[in-house]
Amino acid sequence: MTQSKQQKITLANRPKGMPTKEDFKFVESEVPTPNGQEILVRTLYLSVDPYMRGRMQDTKSYIAPFELNKPITGGVVAEVVESKSDSFKKGDVVVGNIDWAEYTVVTEKEIRVIDPKVAPVTTHLGILGMTGLTAYFGLLDIGKPKEGETVVVSGAAGAVGSAVGQIAKIKGAKVVGIAGSDEKLEYLTKELGFDGAVNYKKDSFVDDLKKAVPDGVDVYFDNVGGDVTDAVFTLLNTNARIPLCGAISSYNAEGKDVGPRLQSAMIKTSATMKGFTVGNYASRFKEGATDLGKWLQEGKLKYEETIIEGFENTPDAFLGLFKGTNLGKQLVKVAEPMFAQL
Amino acid sequence: MTQSKQQKITLANRPKGMPTKEDFKFVESEVPTPNGQEILVRTLYLSVDPYMRGRMQDTKSYIAPFELNKPITGGVVAEVVESKSDSFKKGDVVVGNIDWAEYTVVTEKEIRVIDPKVAPVTTHLGILGMTGLTAYFGLLDIGKPKEGETVVVSGAAGAVGSAVGQIAKIKGAKVVGIAGSDEKLEYLTKELGFDGAVNYKKDSFVDDLKKAVPDGVDVYFDNVGGDVTDAVFTLLNTNARIPLCGAISSYNAEGKDVGPRLQSAMIKTSATMKGFTVGNYASRFKEGATDLGKWLQEGKLKYEETIIEGFENTPDAFLGLFKGTNLGKQLVKVAEPMFAQL
Repeated sequence: MTQSKQQKITLANRPKGMPTKEDFKFVESEVPTPNGQEILVRTLYLSVDPYMRGRMQDTKSYIAPFELNKPITGGVVAEVVESKSDSFKKGDVVVGNIDWAEYTVVTEKEIRVIDPKVAPVTTHLGILGMTGLTAYFGLLDIGKPKEGETVVVSGAAGAVGSAVGQIAKIKGAKVVGIAGSDEKLEYLTKELGFDGAVNYKKDSFVDDLKKAVPDGVDVYFDNVGGDVTDAVFTLLNTNARIPLCGAISSYNAEGKDVGPRLQSAMIKTSATMKGFTVGNYASRFKEGATDLGKWLQEGKLKYEETIIEGFENTPDAFLGLFKGTNLGKQLVKVAEPMFAQL
Repeated sequence: MTQSKQQKITLANRPKGMPTKEDFKFVESEVPTPNGQEILVRTLYLSVDPYMRGRMQDTKSYIAPFELNKPITGGVVAEVVESKSDSFKKGDVVVGNIDWAEYTVVTEKEIRVIDPKVAPVTTHLGILGMTGLTAYFGLLDIGKPKEGETVVVSGAAGAVGSAVGQIAKIKGAKVVGIAGSDEKLEYLTKELGFDGAVNYKKDSFVDDLKKAVPDGVDVYFDNVGGDVTDAVFTLLNTNARIPLCGAISSYNAEGKDVGPRLQSAMIKTSATMKGFTVGNYASRFKEGATDLGKWLQEGKLKYEETIIEGFENTPDAFLGLFKGTNLGKQLVKVAEPMFAQL
């Protein structure tokens, strides 16, 4: 062991509205010791994701809320420091959904080994991890884009959105992304090959969107909700499909989040809207990971990462998600490996 | 011919908000004469339906708007008065989607013969017609209720809603209806065998609904939208299905129809909401009609009709739909048959 004390991040408050740094508390503790068949891991990268905002509230959902004064948990890439399990050895690089901590003791079931030679380890928190699988299953299982159809994706320059658009292109659809800066629009059309991109922060957004989808909208992959979604709803084609992945525009709403009711538009178009979380597809992760890995190797799937250095900057990285400061997957680099070869 | 003049009802105005009698105009004309292979029919019963409110507006939808100063069209049971077609003969009872008129000349494709001996002819405008098929396909194809699941239906004492609840019972589900009077609640539970019924006009509605569905809501068949739907959305179970059939609460809204955004609840529950119209299932009508006819004969499916007498009262019958004055299917009896045996 190289150090005996470590930091964890716990949930200090359940935020009302936009979270602040004060909602997170850094707590010092002893580096724990593995017992039985446990494994001690050291965090290298951690993932901050919009869905975590929901877990900060004490409300019933598909996933239990974070507990007050307990460590926040999320996607982590770590190296094995000490193993009492036959399945893991010192220096293994692993991924799992574990504590926001510099060191964590985990059970065998909480982590799995990843191979740093196949793809950069950070991809397992992004395009080859839950992010990529979210895009893959939401788009293909619910959106079911057909060749020549028009797919619109909101939050298009984010980690999920950028994967959605590229997978839709692979399937032969016409893809229009909605994002919040000209830099992001350029990234979508120039780097990722989107057919169009529209800036929702411009006054001309509604008109711009209409012009960008002359044939209407067959699939709307929704990451944001709110006004952006209202605009897309006026352009739905008959039998439109709407995978509901996120509603980041509402996560920090303090009052009631109200808007035009959508039902009449859905009846008129026989549209289907389906909420989902990637966990629904756990039994098919292998299928998704295989396709995503193949497309990545073939160069058909690009990804971007925004990496903040330093465990102490984790709250800032998380808060940045709601300001749209990230391009692609937002990660925190917590440490350089000591035992693993990346 | 027994008369040479007849009345038609045309659309005089596109109403803003709640329609009034002044939006309909009675126009006298000659009784028309069939040419070629046409058929002259005499209206016996006509159907008034909430969806027609949408056709009074000049907006893009799944069905073309009614034209100003042209006859309104809808479901009609009529008798053949004069036929130039080999497929129809004087005295045949037919059903079709034709003009609101005492007499109409139609083509062979616009009508089909029905057998008055199998079931009362009015059932072809209700439980054995578009109404029953709407309930059948919306519930079974989108709602997919499983044995033991809880199905909630709004507008439950209406023509579609009462069929939905009974079909859900046939499929072994627990059924709770939402309606607007104690008389209707009693009809649902005592006559139709619903497991529960809740009055949305009571101050205690939200609590009453919660108590009525202790296991949450697996299927919500929505005929009304608005506040009623908002209340049901707080009670959705994981993987809930929501066939969107109508949104009668909003049809006459003058301002923007706004309410709480539903997306977050749908993501949390992985719920599926799908708008539909019965026309989507045209290729499967025979399947639906066969099942409905069988259940009707077996006494498993009951229906109620509210019949207003007199063609001149058609606008009142239509307007009553929005006040909830009807129990079951609202029909207008236009005339006694002269040639047909009912």
